[in-house]
Amino acid sequence: MEPPRAPRVRVPLPGLLEGEQRLAAKVGRYLASVHRLRPGDRFAAFDPARAVEAEGVVVDVTAEGLVALMGPLRPARLVASRELVWVQGLPKADKMDGIIRDATELGATRIVPATTTYTVVKLDGSRQGTRLERWQRIAAEAARQCGRGDPPEVLPALPWPAALSAARASGGAAFCLYERATDPLGVTLSVALEADGPVTFAAGPEGGLAENEVLAATEAGFTVASLGPFVLRAETVAAAVLGAVRVLEGMRHARQADER
Amino acid sequence: MEPPRAPRVRVPLPGLLEGEQRLAAKVGRYLASVHRLRPGDRFAAFDPARAVEAEGVVVDVTAEGLVALMGPLRPARLVASRELVWVQGLPKADKMDGIIRDATELGATRIVPATTTYTVVKLDGSRQGTRLERWQRIAAEAARQCGRGDPPEVLPALPWPAALSAARASGGAAFCLYERATDPLGVTLSVALEADGPVTFAAGPEGGLAENEVLAATEAGFTVASLGPFVLRAETVAAAVLGAVRVLEGMRHARQADER
Repeated sequence: MEPPRAPRVRVPLPGLLEGEQRLAAKVGRYLASVHRLRPGDRFAAFDPARAVEAEGVVVDVTAEGLVALMGPLRPARLVASRELVWVQGLPKADKMDGIIRDATELGATRIVPATTTYTVVKLDGSRQGTRLERWQRIAAEAARQCGRGDPPEVLPALPWPAALSAARASGGAAFCLYERATDPLGVTLSVALEADGPVTFAAGPEGGLAENEVLAATEAGFTVASLGPFVLRAETVAAAVLGAVRVLEGMRHARQADER
Repeated sequence: MEPPRAPRVRVPLPGLLEGEQRLAAKVGRYLASVHRLRPGDRFAAFDPARAVEAEGVVVDVTAEGLVALMGPLRPARLVASRELVWVQGLPKADKMDGIIRDATELGATRIVPATTTYTVVKLDGSRQGTRLERWQRIAAEAARQCGRGDPPEVLPALPWPAALSAARASGGAAFCLYERATDPLGVTLSVALEADGPVTFAAGPEGGLAENEVLAATEAGFTVASLGPFVLRAETVAAAVLGAVRVLEGMRHARQADER
């Protein structure tokens, strides 16, 4: 099945309504001046706060602004185009919140928090539930804000080996980021992204991974890979890696469009 | 000139000293168990807090730990391998601090803060100086922590057009990230990274760029490019883009090593 494709012009429009209306000045100018839309041209708009979207048709463009006829609202249908799983060794304090936001914006479909040897936070039964709800709320909010219709699933925190198994359940290629690895991530990752299947990543908390955790990842089928000589903070790794996936995916889609 | 290359095994070693010594248990186990170093084998160690490094030779490996002879300390010589310039439309509050940390870890060599139409913070003369010192201190600290010997240069905040000119002074390819662009970043970026020259990026604050700012970037020689359908927060863009550069650079270096 082809993933839904974004229409060519897609604008955020808080307070999106069905029917004919003058759009907010900034959005109207953007459609008329940058994309040079004229009466009869179509575009899409989404409301980041409500995860709804609608198709629009330009009715009139004047000095007073752009008038559009907006179609019926529907749930936002822009969704992640690939199964992307992120296993995160739990870092200190609220760093996990930022990682969940980054991973959501950058297309992760499942986030698996993991307790590791160097994880400092202790999650007992009741705190575990509270934190999971918080993480799921953050993922839902981040999805809405970035115009994404499908927030990632956030699992409860699991011990590292169980987290690796849960993440690998969907199959596909898997990479464990390790600052002391000698193989660069890029080569094997770009090969993995040539196929449509799921891709899984695992990364440690700020203290890094213990040797037996790296070994466990290898045994679970993860390729251990490095992001280069400088040591990244735990909270930078997800954005850097998933940003790279996004750029490599953009290259692949452009190549596929050329081939059609 | 070839950039200095990282030795194969390189470990962080707080409190690095010259002379024969038993290494901290974690580091010793890592060298002996993961990399299987034996007496006579060489490695490199760096002290993230002092930006110094030294070569080491394994003297003895026993149940008590690993004894190494560390050579003379020298300034860390692991430096960015390419000129990478990041122009950042100033976001609110302390978000710029995080962007500077991310950009430093991911190899930026020059950071140019820019005031834009949707920049909320106002920088008068005295606050400008205070913030610049703060940003430079953050860049220096982030470089030390990630084992990098060359903190990026941070310029004082400039109006957007002047920031673009300052960034373009070094030449090379340039990209302006714009969430409403239709061309994906990947294709042109991967071509640009095939050459050794400088690469410059520009991104807006959380309110986005105004149309005339995107136009100014185009006129200054920037290619306007998108990171995909989901709208990223201002503070995620640098990590995502520079992470992609790092992964693409890793691919290029691996290919070059294969060709040699």
